[in-house]
Amino acid sequence: MTTDLPLRTQCANALRMLAIDAVQAAHSGHPGMPMGMADIAEALWRHVLKHDPAHPQWIDRDRFVLSNGHGSMLLYGLLHLCGYALPLDELKRFRQLHSLTPGHPEVDVTPGVETTTGPLGQGLANAVGMALAEKLLADEFNRPGHPVVDHRTWVFAGDGCLMEGISHEACSLAGTWGLNKLVVFYDDNGISIDGEVSGWFTDDTPARFEAYGWTVLRDVDGHDPLVLDEAIRQAMASDRPVLVCCQTEIGHGSPNRANTADVHGAPLGEAEIALTRAALGWTSAPFQVPEAVARAWSAAAAGSSRHAAWERRMAAYAEDYPELAHELLRRTAGRTAAAALPASAEAALAEAIRVAEERRAAVATRKASQELLNAVGPQLPELLGGSADLTGSNLTDWKGHRPLTGRGTGNHVHYGVREFGMAAVMNGVALHGGHRPYGGTFLTFSDYSRNAVRMSALMKLPVVHVFTHDSIGLGEDGPTHQPVEHASSLRLIPGLDVWRPADATETAVAWREALRRGDGPSALLLTRQGLPHAGDGFDRTEAIARGAYVLRRPAGERVALLASGSEVGIALAAAEWLAQQGVPARVVSVPCLDRFERQDATYRAATIPRHLPRLAIEAGSSGLWWKHVGEQGDVVGLDRFGESAPAAQLFKLFGFTPEAVAERALRLLPRAHPVHDEALQHVALSAN
Amino acid sequence: MTTDLPLRTQCANALRMLAIDAVQAAHSGHPGMPMGMADIAEALWRHVLKHDPAHPQWIDRDRFVLSNGHGSMLLYGLLHLCGYALPLDELKRFRQLHSLTPGHPEVDVTPGVETTTGPLGQGLANAVGMALAEKLLADEFNRPGHPVVDHRTWVFAGDGCLMEGISHEACSLAGTWGLNKLVVFYDDNGISIDGEVSGWFTDDTPARFEAYGWTVLRDVDGHDPLVLDEAIRQAMASDRPVLVCCQTEIGHGSPNRANTADVHGAPLGEAEIALTRAALGWTSAPFQVPEAVARAWSAAAAGSSRHAAWERRMAAYAEDYPELAHELLRRTAGRTAAAALPASAEAALAEAIRVAEERRAAVATRKASQELLNAVGPQLPELLGGSADLTGSNLTDWKGHRPLTGRGTGNHVHYGVREFGMAAVMNGVALHGGHRPYGGTFLTFSDYSRNAVRMSALMKLPVVHVFTHDSIGLGEDGPTHQPVEHASSLRLIPGLDVWRPADATETAVAWREALRRGDGPSALLLTRQGLPHAGDGFDRTEAIARGAYVLRRPAGERVALLASGSEVGIALAAAEWLAQQGVPARVVSVPCLDRFERQDATYRAATIPRHLPRLAIEAGSSGLWWKHVGEQGDVVGLDRFGESAPAAQLFKLFGFTPEAVAERALRLLPRAHPVHDEALQHVALSAN
Repeated sequence: MTTDLPLRTQCANALRMLAIDAVQAAHSGHPGMPMGMADIAEALWRHVLKHDPAHPQWIDRDRFVLSNGHGSMLLYGLLHLCGYALPLDELKRFRQLHSLTPGHPEVDVTPGVETTTGPLGQGLANAVGMALAEKLLADEFNRPGHPVVDHRTWVFAGDGCLMEGISHEACSLAGTWGLNKLVVFYDDNGISIDGEVSGWFTDDTPARFEAYGWTVLRDVDGHDPLVLDEAIRQAMASDRPVLVCCQTEIGHGSPNRANTADVHGAPLGEAEIALTRAALGWTSAPFQVPEAVARAWSAAAAGSSRHAAWERRMAAYAEDYPELAHELLRRTAGRTAAAALPASAEAALAEAIRVAEERRAAVATRKASQELLNAVGPQLPELLGGSADLTGSNLTDWKGHRPLTGRGTGNHVHYGVREFGMAAVMNGVALHGGHRPYGGTFLTFSDYSRNAVRMSALMKLPVVHVFTHDSIGLGEDGPTHQPVEHASSLRLIPGLDVWRPADATETAVAWREALRRGDGPSALLLTRQGLPHAGDGFDRTEAIARGAYVLRRPAGERVALLASGSEVGIALAAAEWLAQQGVPARVVSVPCLDRFERQDATYRAATIPRHLPRLAIEAGSSGLWWKHVGEQGDVVGLDRFGESAPAAQLFKLFGFTPEAVAERALRLLPRAHPVHDEALQHVALSAN
Repeated sequence: MTTDLPLRTQCANALRMLAIDAVQAAHSGHPGMPMGMADIAEALWRHVLKHDPAHPQWIDRDRFVLSNGHGSMLLYGLLHLCGYALPLDELKRFRQLHSLTPGHPEVDVTPGVETTTGPLGQGLANAVGMALAEKLLADEFNRPGHPVVDHRTWVFAGDGCLMEGISHEACSLAGTWGLNKLVVFYDDNGISIDGEVSGWFTDDTPARFEAYGWTVLRDVDGHDPLVLDEAIRQAMASDRPVLVCCQTEIGHGSPNRANTADVHGAPLGEAEIALTRAALGWTSAPFQVPEAVARAWSAAAAGSSRHAAWERRMAAYAEDYPELAHELLRRTAGRTAAAALPASAEAALAEAIRVAEERRAAVATRKASQELLNAVGPQLPELLGGSADLTGSNLTDWKGHRPLTGRGTGNHVHYGVREFGMAAVMNGVALHGGHRPYGGTFLTFSDYSRNAVRMSALMKLPVVHVFTHDSIGLGEDGPTHQPVEHASSLRLIPGLDVWRPADATETAVAWREALRRGDGPSALLLTRQGLPHAGDGFDRTEAIARGAYVLRRPAGERVALLASGSEVGIALAAAEWLAQQGVPARVVSVPCLDRFERQDATYRAATIPRHLPRLAIEAGSSGLWWKHVGEQGDVVGLDRFGESAPAAQLFKLFGFTPEAVAERALRLLPRAHPVHDEALQHVALSAN
């Protein structure tokens, strides 16, 4: 190769060529971004980034987020060259089944990848969460002379990320919170998939970020290493989050494709690759990196040394503050480990469940949720709650909550009216480690945050999404605010546990299960309105945890009623009613359909028996219930939008009353059943 | 009453008191915003707004959008006082079942309500769509001396709207498009539900909007009529969209609640109402408005006169440009009427369907969609397409498309990477009238736009959501980009027709049905990859339109395979395979499950017969299919996230091959069936 090129240029070109070669080999991928951001990556990763390739989970490492995740080959190239456990063979298997190099970066697949990105804007919001987590941990654990938590969060983001609405939500929060250790490199190349962005993206982006309270470095030449060094130096000195606006050329190095949308998402092709090699002075074979360049990239020694220095700091800290050190390590021991709750928390949960079951109080499940937090909160300092401007409605605050606003610290975040931002920030907090995030909004507005909820499931993050006002029970606010399809729609997200508890006990168990879960998110769907206690004296705790259980099993049962949440009480009342008509009815409470479907066949069959006619009752979409009632069964559901009216009227209007449910149940009985016609007539009379 | 108060103040106070009284009567609602924005409403509605209460559908009326929809009583007060068909009795029934005054404003429920609002930020985005529609219609239809389309769009928006990400997407577009007839009054009262916004909303909002290219009027006293008059005058003179930053006091007039979050969303209570009446000098009984004030509010005469002037302009225009006038009236005849397609469009659709069926081409359905647009586009000038920066992937462009970028005009909008903004802008375009909007993104990113899709369904808007790359068939981009739960999750939205066509013919029919639909939105889920032609020589057109139909009905059928989209071809191949094993299999194509479920019981039973064992095949969530296969049936679905790999490998990995499907079908046959074990063995062998 042309060794008279500066080493730094050669290092950047190595990233370019690995991306070009891998995309070409895969016949698929995005070379334009890696080629455009290679110089920035070189400046950051070879000279500044604090990391130890041998220990990608080192808790005080800098976090790096590739928010424009389609440029994944840039990150894979970096990880490979720096010395992470990502061999060249995996780069050659870019985008192939079960490789370590999927099309977009995926956390827990590739060592060194901090978050799964691709859905634009969300990586940036995850990074805001990571920087928040770092700040809160530093506030909580650092002591004078002991900066054991002291790292930065770096982000690469493109035009797409900054056009997305979530960038507004997350970056506004970052400014408010004063996250000065967050630095975002904006790949301002003027091109998006449809072409030159001047036709659809005319924001004065620097001014916009200044309006958020960020430091903005304008017009930074994204291809000049010295300029980049200086920008990074300035960024690290800022007392605010920093946007580094890098003027770059997409596909930099490609004679014919640079600065065009063509280079964004398609292989260059052999001919253009040859021209690009010549233009870059790159003479090595595909996937080969000259030894001097490879050596220059290795971060093993520097990483190991930095990591060792931190270990020494940590040892000194442990000497002076043994309890704090122990707690810091407990809190940051990894996502799965974090799910192993302290014994005191388990005890508090058990006690809260016992008390809820004993009190038999009629209570809204959002209120029961708050009571559970009151009980367990003191034992779980890692809880980081919050609400998207509905704190007093979601009841996510608790006695020991400390509001986090502005540049302050706390354990309950006022996210403002930013549902999507909240969910993606929570994902970042969970990815960072050290906190267990939960956050609330109305269930209807899970629509706003939906893809971040999906991402928490895809990444298996222990995030708790608190969604209150979970049905027409919300009442007068009307159909815009009344969830109908949302419970079922969330159940469809693979790996998300959707809980819709029926009373305080079920709520407490749902929280316990959500907190115990280290390998995925949970959604708690809670009522605005009070619900009667559903238990009947037996210990339901482990039954609830299985997702569905028999709440009422009379002798000679002839029909089964399945229900969740606020409809369980209606089902119980309907069963009483049916009993009076001589029709014993089983009642099955289904607080978590996802959990139940993971139980073994024996438990499932024993709980929802096929030999009984079955009626499901839920104030929402009926579709998913047919699997459990069969085609001979029926569903009292709501497959239309709600109405604005007091809740009690709506439940009646839409058939969610004991009498109406009983009537539907009776219709399932075999015609020959002697009680049938008489009881139906009785229902008809009482309904008048 | 204290008649020495200026009439304008009294007029504003009438709005305040109606809101206070109605919220109190309902024991529910939001008095704070109406009290805070009453003076702005007075300045706009009594002095500037162009409308005719007797004709709320007058096409050249100004549009008014209450984006902070929780302040609905402000709008109801305005409509009542101005003389819309909204009697006082309806205000007394605020938030009651089937009243004309639901908790949040709902279009088509209350005369004069232009869009359904409540989910924050979306009203603002709808307004951007309305202003875009006005601009495009004016560009297309106005002629020198004939400004027949010349109206404005006015918006009230609060802190919540501006915190939401969608405000970034929509307002960035409004700036790029130069929508100078859009004026937004920002209710800058410093309070949101959680309290003083200074803790979570520290944006320099004026600077932010200047960065979008808006004119910003800062520090406007929102309680001073003369200041407001001047601001409105300036706003109307701007060549850009305008943000009027109004300093207001939430709950203005309430001695103890003003400027607190308490007044946001709860009744004042009798005691505070008494104090407020005194403070406002208001002596009338609840719900009573002094005659002089009522008279001052009436907009009947002025509205009628302005409307008549426009009718005269329209008559002169019709004289000079009869064809244009006719076309303008056709295009703006209302949403339901707009669904009555011109005969030429119907003919083009019929021909396109015939050609698709004859060609029998193997084609990706996204490509088939583009071909349909090529065929029908020239006959439907009202089509307003677009894509969220994926034009070349969604193939929403067509031969006659004219890109709309910057301040230009066109019929295909480059929305940039703004899925939610696009969907909400399309809702606004549809609400305004004159265009039939459609827009594309990847199906996965329907998550981003989901609540706007829901709103298009709730408002029954004829919007077409084009979602391509509809499964793991997307391939290498991996699980972040591969929809799994999305088809089913969209089907759960009441009133949304979700089409997943299997070939070019089904795609063309789906488009026809979507375009014919005047009373609701449609989603077209289209493949990236090519699909074989599914038809078998008979005319499927009307069968497809019913949502499901029998594609293959062999003699002696023993099993039924149900499939949608890309899995129909697999089902057909599996049926061939089964036929060779002596197991005749029916194949049912299900392009639109929603439609099918609306068919009568006879058609449903004839199409998906209960007497046959049934297997459903869809590369997505299995849950909704159990209703149609029964508990004796089975579903080949995908209830986990995908993987990054070439599509063909993924279909095989997840069991979507003819052989694997055939095997699953065979397992449904009664054990006693002689062919069973032999055929299964054969499958097992061939799978090796």
